[in-house]
Amino acid sequence: MKKLWEKGIETDAFIEKFTVGNDRELDLELAKYDVQGTIAHITMLESVGLLESDELEELTDELDRILNEVIEPGDFEIEEGVEDVHSQIELMLTRKLGGIGKKVHSGRSRNDQVLVDIRLYLRDQIKEIASLSRKLFDTLISQSESNKAILLPGYTHTQAAMPSSFGMWFGAYAESLVDDLVLLESTYKVINRNPLGSAAGYGSSFPLDRTMTTELLGFEGLNMNSVYAQMGRGKTEQTLSFAMAGLAGTLNKLASDVCLYNSQNFNFIKLPDELTTGSSIMPHKKNPDVFELIRAKTNLLLSLPNQIMMTTSNLTSGYHRDFQVLKEILFPAIQELKNCLFIADHATGKIQVNDQILDDLKYKLIFSVEAVNKLVLDGTPFRDAYQKVAQQIEDGSFEPPTELNHTHEGSVGSLGNEEIRSRLDELEI
Amino acid sequence: MKKLWEKGIETDAFIEKFTVGNDRELDLELAKYDVQGTIAHITMLESVGLLESDELEELTDELDRILNEVIEPGDFEIEEGVEDVHSQIELMLTRKLGGIGKKVHSGRSRNDQVLVDIRLYLRDQIKEIASLSRKLFDTLISQSESNKAILLPGYTHTQAAMPSSFGMWFGAYAESLVDDLVLLESTYKVINRNPLGSAAGYGSSFPLDRTMTTELLGFEGLNMNSVYAQMGRGKTEQTLSFAMAGLAGTLNKLASDVCLYNSQNFNFIKLPDELTTGSSIMPHKKNPDVFELIRAKTNLLLSLPNQIMMTTSNLTSGYHRDFQVLKEILFPAIQELKNCLFIADHATGKIQVNDQILDDLKYKLIFSVEAVNKLVLDGTPFRDAYQKVAQQIEDGSFEPPTELNHTHEGSVGSLGNEEIRSRLDELEI
Amino acid sequence: MKKLWEKGIETDAFIEKFTVGNDRELDLELAKYDVQGTIAHITMLESVGLLESDELEELTDELDRILNEVIEPGDFEIEEGVEDVHSQIELMLTRKLGGIGKKVHSGRSRNDQVLVDIRLYLRDQIKEIASLSRKLFDTLISQSESNKAILLPGYTHTQAAMPSSFGMWFGAYAESLVDDLVLLESTYKVINRNPLGSAAGYGSSFPLDRTMTTELLGFEGLNMNSVYAQMGRGKTEQTLSFAMAGLAGTLNKLASDVCLYNSQNFNFIKLPDELTTGSSIMPHKKNPDVFELIRAKTNLLLSLPNQIMMTTSNLTSGYHRDFQVLKEILFPAIQELKNCLFIADHATGKIQVNDQILDDLKYKLIFSVEAVNKLVLDGTPFRDAYQKVAQQIEDGSFEPPTELNHTHEGSVGSLGNEEIRSRLDELEI
Amino acid sequence: MKKLWEKGIETDAFIEKFTVGNDRELDLELAKYDVQGTIAHITMLESVGLLESDELEELTDELDRILNEVIEPGDFEIEEGVEDVHSQIELMLTRKLGGIGKKVHSGRSRNDQVLVDIRLYLRDQIKEIASLSRKLFDTLISQSESNKAILLPGYTHTQAAMPSSFGMWFGAYAESLVDDLVLLESTYKVINRNPLGSAAGYGSSFPLDRTMTTELLGFEGLNMNSVYAQMGRGKTEQTLSFAMAGLAGTLNKLASDVCLYNSQNFNFIKLPDELTTGSSIMPHKKNPDVFELIRAKTNLLLSLPNQIMMTTSNLTSGYHRDFQVLKEILFPAIQELKNCLFIADHATGKIQVNDQILDDLKYKLIFSVEAVNKLVLDGTPFRDAYQKVAQQIEDGSFEPPTELNHTHEGSVGSLGNEEIRSRLDELEI
Repeated sequence: MKKLWEKGIETDAFIEKFTVGNDRELDLELAKYDVQGTIAHITMLESVGLLESDELEELTDELDRILNEVIEPGDFEIEEGVEDVHSQIELMLTRKLGGIGKKVHSGRSRNDQVLVDIRLYLRDQIKEIASLSRKLFDTLISQSESNKAILLPGYTHTQAAMPSSFGMWFGAYAESLVDDLVLLESTYKVINRNPLGSAAGYGSSFPLDRTMTTELLGFEGLNMNSVYAQMGRGKTEQTLSFAMAGLAGTLNKLASDVCLYNSQNFNFIKLPDELTTGSSIMPHKKNPDVFELIRAKTNLLLSLPNQIMMTTSNLTSGYHRDFQVLKEILFPAIQELKNCLFIADHATGKIQVNDQILDDLKYKLIFSVEAVNKLVLDGTPFRDAYQKVAQQIEDGSFEPPTELNHTHEGSVGSLGNEEIRSRLDELEI
Repeated sequence: MKKLWEKGIETDAFIEKFTVGNDRELDLELAKYDVQGTIAHITMLESVGLLESDELEELTDELDRILNEVIEPGDFEIEEGVEDVHSQIELMLTRKLGGIGKKVHSGRSRNDQVLVDIRLYLRDQIKEIASLSRKLFDTLISQSESNKAILLPGYTHTQAAMPSSFGMWFGAYAESLVDDLVLLESTYKVINRNPLGSAAGYGSSFPLDRTMTTELLGFEGLNMNSVYAQMGRGKTEQTLSFAMAGLAGTLNKLASDVCLYNSQNFNFIKLPDELTTGSSIMPHKKNPDVFELIRAKTNLLLSLPNQIMMTTSNLTSGYHRDFQVLKEILFPAIQELKNCLFIADHATGKIQVNDQILDDLKYKLIFSVEAVNKLVLDGTPFRDAYQKVAQQIEDGSFEPPTELNHTHEGSVGSLGNEEIRSRLDELEI
Repeated sequence: MKKLWEKGIETDAFIEKFTVGNDRELDLELAKYDVQGTIAHITMLESVGLLESDELEELTDELDRILNEVIEPGDFEIEEGVEDVHSQIELMLTRKLGGIGKKVHSGRSRNDQVLVDIRLYLRDQIKEIASLSRKLFDTLISQSESNKAILLPGYTHTQAAMPSSFGMWFGAYAESLVDDLVLLESTYKVINRNPLGSAAGYGSSFPLDRTMTTELLGFEGLNMNSVYAQMGRGKTEQTLSFAMAGLAGTLNKLASDVCLYNSQNFNFIKLPDELTTGSSIMPHKKNPDVFELIRAKTNLLLSLPNQIMMTTSNLTSGYHRDFQVLKEILFPAIQELKNCLFIADHATGKIQVNDQILDDLKYKLIFSVEAVNKLVLDGTPFRDAYQKVAQQIEDGSFEPPTELNHTHEGSVGSLGNEEIRSRLDELEI
Repeated sequence: MKKLWEKGIETDAFIEKFTVGNDRELDLELAKYDVQGTIAHITMLESVGLLESDELEELTDELDRILNEVIEPGDFEIEEGVEDVHSQIELMLTRKLGGIGKKVHSGRSRNDQVLVDIRLYLRDQIKEIASLSRKLFDTLISQSESNKAILLPGYTHTQAAMPSSFGMWFGAYAESLVDDLVLLESTYKVINRNPLGSAAGYGSSFPLDRTMTTELLGFEGLNMNSVYAQMGRGKTEQTLSFAMAGLAGTLNKLASDVCLYNSQNFNFIKLPDELTTGSSIMPHKKNPDVFELIRAKTNLLLSLPNQIMMTTSNLTSGYHRDFQVLKEILFPAIQELKNCLFIADHATGKIQVNDQILDDLKYKLIFSVEAVNKLVLDGTPFRDAYQKVAQQIEDGSFEPPTELNHTHEGSVGSLGNEEIRSRLDELEI
């Protein structure tokens, strides 16, 4: 099949293979959204007189059929020699409807077509990411509440420092997700605007009704300026990559903690056998591979913004074919983030905590601040109390207080999980 | 002067130099906020009975004096042998007030002290960034309106493609700033929460009233979980770096365009002589150094998130001294972004546009889509119209339409600058 | 099939899917090298008495058969439920030879097995990269020589500055490749050392003869220290990524030039039709997509070191499962670099240059330095000559010299391509 | 003072401040090399008849005086209003010698002047980096030899896995440095080539003798092609950043290990008090801040290649002012790397190891592989031996072997430090 833009000259076969890349595969994700975008576009075309109403009906019926009978069941594919999803769907239309099929392209370009497809696709992906994050949030809060009374040492400089609790530890990651979702929510807001009608990035001489397609596609508003709409390619991906990296950072730290706490040298938590793997030569090993891989894969997600910015930096305005590779970067990364969120939720729910940690005498000194504070509450100035306890530790006479009395908001005795959840509940994502 | 944590052992001089780094310089930025944080903290301490009211008064008076008579006039400095801003201010208090001065440290750690200082500092910096961005926005809209009728070619693949206008070009960057500020606004929201009271990251056994300090310092709410509050170190910087990179990306593209359009091969715009520099061996050169440097410096800002994430990735929870270098990374970057925004505004306002660009015959073909569309509006199916115009171009018979008729929202004839501005006006930053 | 390390406990299905990742696919690249490594290992085992000579013969015969009859024809695959290439080959051996098959694992771990596989694989890949780079070098030199007399403007600050030639332009990229290959050669040297025998990273209590396997596998020497051999995971990939990024940088700049020079505003070069693509709505466009994609894909390669370092930074010594994702990062990147080198060579050979560029009057001023130098050669001090020519340009009286006389090494008149080639010839890669 | 390229037009004050940046400070590093480059250049100019021999003598004398009496004592500075080091030195010459002073600029441009300055500067810096690395190497080998008999657990997956030794651990980092220096050596080779004579990147119409300046400046050879010589800006910095990141990676892993091993949960090593810092609220803390800061600062160095590549990617050939910021990125990074190497050496030499680690029963199982191997050496097939020991561990009957017998090259019993050192000795850096 000829490409849309071919005028009789054969493209070099090497060049074709190189330039098509794996678009034919990645574009499958977009098929559903391409149909949605096209239906909105032609509905608008008809409303401004660029399509007859019976043409609109024929086209819409056939597009609905393609969506429901081919795409939704998973049977859609881009044929050999067809360049991308847009060409494939137009080909299917013209095969069935002849010349009418060609009319869907009036007043737009593949540029705004792919822009709108990607926006629609990303909207759905963001919602899925938010949903998986909320599920992990629930698991973390649940673990926080179940283990709120179980203490572990809190570390600074990887040195045991002060008493903490599993209620605090799990809850901290839950609160971290809330801030990540604040960023994701604003990303959604930026992405949920309509680029359709910007054509090749400079608008069209057709009297397009962009407000109509905005409403039909459920966008919050327009990417108004057509030149800016085209700038969205790259910027959209970059913005989303930031929010994704935010979430990845939370998972990375959680996984880093788990890998350390699961070591025999800490023994704070235990993963059930079905979550661990062994060693081919060391029969005693029970390795936390799943969290090591979360740690590693989230690092790839942390490097995602950089990959995107490296590609787009120093490029002038207007479309460049360079943007094609952004799909190769972003689409698999989205799937990877969803995998990581899912598996982190799955595995976090199964973490078993050790409730005997502080019985170990080596943690005695983490109560030193309690002792200092006790002196202060009894009237000793802080610095003097500090010097006194330091002296006791130095000469071996230090005896830790026998009970922990943390009462302020966000402390061991008052986790504030409800307040954290209420912030999450306010988010519209 | 002894360090807060010294107990009689001399630290190695090399180690001290290496570990202090340039904190003494960077911390000057924080002095004002350290005083604010301390006043809020001791006001709260008095309210929960950990400080006498006359002690509070003495301390507050002296802190006010330090702020107004030392810091605000720019006379504050961290003395030789004093480690950081917190120690310096405490030293000044104890010199003046003796033992009372030591009490300001009750119920907190340098960890939450620096956390709150940074948050307060970043709030102000974000507002300045927003303000400079709004100024650039105004300049871009003004240039867009002034030059709305002047056409230039729009490019795809760095190939002249379709007619555009300076109204569109300047306006696109204005709209880009709006989306950048959406991200900055949500960053402000994430940052504007109170970490004070988290102490070393595990809370305190003092009955601190964190809601009170939240209100005193004007935070929107708490970083509730104390472990999470400490996780904010690194995450805060990362989140802000994303929003900064967003703005940097907009400036980078603007600068890339200017450098190209200013070339003799484009000659679309001209920078007044006072904005250009020359060559030491080529007398005819008038170089757009200022925009080349904006392009380069914004690239450094684009790499900022990566620098921060590289530093913090794979670290477990709890404070690590590693976080100190985040100040070295972030603080100068903030100043650089403000410089770039300021100078971009300054220089953009002076850009002079060429109003004769399309007189050049080499741009004739950019009207081909107009010609295609005209045929379509007269009833020819799009693909056929496309083939017909392609044929005219091939045989040299193509004659461009004599007038441009772009009317839809966001096109040359309808820039939508008012709508773009109204989105900006809705932002609370 | 049970995993090597399984002891009767079922691994969670989600966890298995997540942890296996796409290893089963990526490991296919390693099958050939795994057999080579195993043959060397068992040959050594027999020599130190850990294997009978008839066992060695049986195992070697079967491994040869697997290599020649299964792997080389492309029929090797990792069965469902088998974790990786090492397990698959061991399974094939035990199916055929029973208990003897299990003996190949004596004295090693999957850790040093995969280390050696990757080294052998990368050695071959580096040679292929070098070979493709040399081919591109030849094409560049050939273009440089063919077009040595054709002038174009040289730019600084994207401003036409001084006369240059296509001989210079093509030749510059050839010389750039030489320096890239210097780096690749030293990378080969670092990689071409034997990690086999380091077992899980701490050596073995078997009396392994590591020098023997070093010779059998053609390594230049040992990764001596077993702990360091294991550190090679991550460091190897990082080192290669640097050399790959070096080459990518050269291609990126070449592609950036081509995309610009191919624009109507430059019109310095022309790509034959079969190398360009068109536009779906602009019939006159002939876009240089292939070079835009080289530019974009090389940016991904430029971000490769960062992806690897982000993953491995802050990790302690010893194996971590995190390293598995390095295969996912590096292996496809190697293929992408080879694709880019191949297609860059293919397309660069077809670039057609415009031999009328300097006829355009707008380039007149690029001869101003020639004029200055002429005055200097006639005795005027440089700065005075500079001011004089600047004055002529200012008042419009400047007339460019009519001939170019660049004679020094590396100038338009003396390209030095032979010297550049002789540096390449000295490289052992 | 007027800029070299000024022709009577005032540059905007804001623009001047922005474009000069901190060049006046950074350029101080280059002053010495600028004089060296100029002396070589004018010696060559005289030899080709572009300078009288008495002019050469006067100029050389004055340049020597500036070098010895101003620069070497540290009194050189770039005056207010003078743009860079090149202008300052030329100004000093003309103040003293009048018109003759201007002649040093004949046949070159600031572009090749700064190129050669940077190359000369980097050659020296590379040598210093190599020297500091060799010093750290000696310390590591010394610690390896002193502690060769002291065992510690070797970890995989952060799980205690097999017996290792401090001999192995320290030695591994020494060997890592050797590979890092292989990369640095080839970087030196790439950098040690002469760009002088490339002028603004397109050569000169003067009959320059570039081979002569190559010899005078001690370069190994020429950057032959003048266009390529200019491409060295960016590429040089990038290449060096790779080698720097290699070294940083080694230090980062060493520091990561130290921070972990120093934790109470490991207690493998101890830092003397003068190397640690304390806590402002926790009197018992002795924190390894110096290694945490090495870990953090090396992360910045790991992000260095990315910063450079982000800046230069997608730029066309020819000088761009963007390159100026590379000095701001690279120069401080070089100092930081040298600081990190120095302090790592200083602190590593003081690490005290715990010689009782394996007395702790929790490490009993790390001898399981020894037990498996013992069975194998007695004739049991590996997989069966593995299952048997696994069974003993499962039922609690496992008893570890009482002695460790690792004898192969690179194992606990045969560190191979001499062989490692001999590889280092072969390097010419």
